[in-house]
Amino acid sequence: MELKMPKKALVTGAAGFLGSHLCRRLLDEGYEVTALDNLFTGTKDNILSLFENRRFSFVLHDVTQPFWGQFDEIYNLACPASPIHYQHNPVETLKASVLGMMNMLDLALKTKARLLHTSTSEIYGDPLVHPQVETYWGNVNTIGVRSCYDEGKRCAETLAADYRREYGVDVRMVRIFNTYGPNMHPKDGRVISNFIMQALSNDDITLFGDGLQTRSFQYCDDLIEAIRRYMALPLETVDAFCAKCGLGAPVINVGNPGEYTVKQLAEEILRQMPESRSKLVYRPMPQDDPKRRKPDITLAKELLGWEPKIPLNEGLAKTIAYFRNLVAG
Amino acid sequence: MELKMPKKALVTGAAGFLGSHLCRRLLDEGYEVTALDNLFTGTKDNILSLFENRRFSFVLHDVTQPFWGQFDEIYNLACPASPIHYQHNPVETLKASVLGMMNMLDLALKTKARLLHTSTSEIYGDPLVHPQVETYWGNVNTIGVRSCYDEGKRCAETLAADYRREYGVDVRMVRIFNTYGPNMHPKDGRVISNFIMQALSNDDITLFGDGLQTRSFQYCDDLIEAIRRYMALPLETVDAFCAKCGLGAPVINVGNPGEYTVKQLAEEILRQMPESRSKLVYRPMPQDDPKRRKPDITLAKELLGWEPKIPLNEGLAKTIAYFRNLVAG
Repeated sequence: MELKMPKKALVTGAAGFLGSHLCRRLLDEGYEVTALDNLFTGTKDNILSLFENRRFSFVLHDVTQPFWGQFDEIYNLACPASPIHYQHNPVETLKASVLGMMNMLDLALKTKARLLHTSTSEIYGDPLVHPQVETYWGNVNTIGVRSCYDEGKRCAETLAADYRREYGVDVRMVRIFNTYGPNMHPKDGRVISNFIMQALSNDDITLFGDGLQTRSFQYCDDLIEAIRRYMALPLETVDAFCAKCGLGAPVINVGNPGEYTVKQLAEEILRQMPESRSKLVYRPMPQDDPKRRKPDITLAKELLGWEPKIPLNEGLAKTIAYFRNLVAG
Repeated sequence: MELKMPKKALVTGAAGFLGSHLCRRLLDEGYEVTALDNLFTGTKDNILSLFENRRFSFVLHDVTQPFWGQFDEIYNLACPASPIHYQHNPVETLKASVLGMMNMLDLALKTKARLLHTSTSEIYGDPLVHPQVETYWGNVNTIGVRSCYDEGKRCAETLAADYRREYGVDVRMVRIFNTYGPNMHPKDGRVISNFIMQALSNDDITLFGDGLQTRSFQYCDDLIEAIRRYMALPLETVDAFCAKCGLGAPVINVGNPGEYTVKQLAEEILRQMPESRSKLVYRPMPQDDPKRRKPDITLAKELLGWEPKIPLNEGLAKTIAYFRNLVAG
């Protein structure tokens, strides 16, 4: 009889929205999972159900400090990701991106682990190119109030690219576009959680301007599927793809290119929540309204044979069920 | 009789080209100067003549490690700045920018020191706006071979802006455009040192393309003058200026907007070196020819009452004298 050892994965930001989904998926696939989180924006509630699995370990740890251990795969997700959170402490947000990346790259280098880094569509800033392709360099302010997140994430990409070129670290990056689903923070200020929470409490649902500005929404399971396919690829495949595309590092957009107006989103949410007495109200467009971004996912399709599968109404149903349960306590 | 204590300054990157000029200027003004350098690209030769001054201390130290001490003013210049140097070790280059900035900001925060950070025109990348104004966000690749410098410097600006907003650190930034003068590294790959060294060794002077691409050249003393004026301003003046200009942080371009073709530069150097048997030769334009950048210095003029004073022929004469002496040993 052969004893098969489970593969070992480290997940940073494990108690956050995406981290919790990734941990569950890795456990479902038979991994031994070490989950790191400093619980600044993440919450143990998101991973409580995982504690009973003996292949799961949680470590309260801040990624700005080094962490050592032997893993086959490292998934670096740690960083406050909503403006409400990251503007609460901009310096720590930037340090989570940059020092966290350094620590995970050093760990991957020492232990020859494969490393997945989650970058973001925010590195494109206020894009002058639509939809955004990976070769677009972005349009980002270095000294504004959102810069801590955008520039921290840009700098993390640079570190990853240089550790790969200089030291041969097997690092792969995804630029994640707007993603939603259960375990989102109810007060993270994003449009989907805002609308559902407003509908649940029968408050007016606030649309800015005419509500006809468009957004792309990716359901979390689609993202996790892309990440797992990406990490399953042999290094040679990734290197060859990178060279073929003329990319300085393996970085692909992962998002859902389908576009909906904010008004369509609100209407679909109210359709699924007929008990809500919320009304749509229109307010003047604020100055810092989030910019429109839409991913070009040609590279992800080609490299991963992947595209998003979950339609908005289906993803919303699961997300609404989650928030209903959360509010019911 | 009143005992007047000299003001204390810390200079990082003190043994580099600009650091050495700044140290001398501060000593001339009566400062007590602590000079830090890890001597990776800087050299003790640049500051040897300062060692006899008892107000001068040199500490062999790498800014990626914390440094503590009580200073009135901190000048953060440490970072490999020529592509030849920074591409030799991209990861350490980025760390010098980002960790060096964190350490100096932490020092300024703890000791209430005033901090000058030297940013760079490279944060504009391959600019789509000419000349570059401070409100231009730049056009920079996150994952290319030059990104370690560009993104490291961008991230340092973000850190500075956030430490100022979040913790009230009195940090001021200059974006330095192409600067030359004595103590430049003879092999840093910049056009002025290249040409003078070629002329001194009677090698052909290499022009790329037709040699009609333009460059701006600032003599080092002009830059040092701007830096000293900037640091002498009261905090309220800087804050008010920042608010008036709608800048997220006090950052001003410092450079010489005068433009010369590379060919004009080569001809002026040969005119001043009649003993040289070098000839101009033309080569095909390389792919990564440095981009044209020209500073808009309206803000520096207004805030500092400053503009560059040293004409190119005069600055070149001093630089040629320096390199002549260096080669003569």
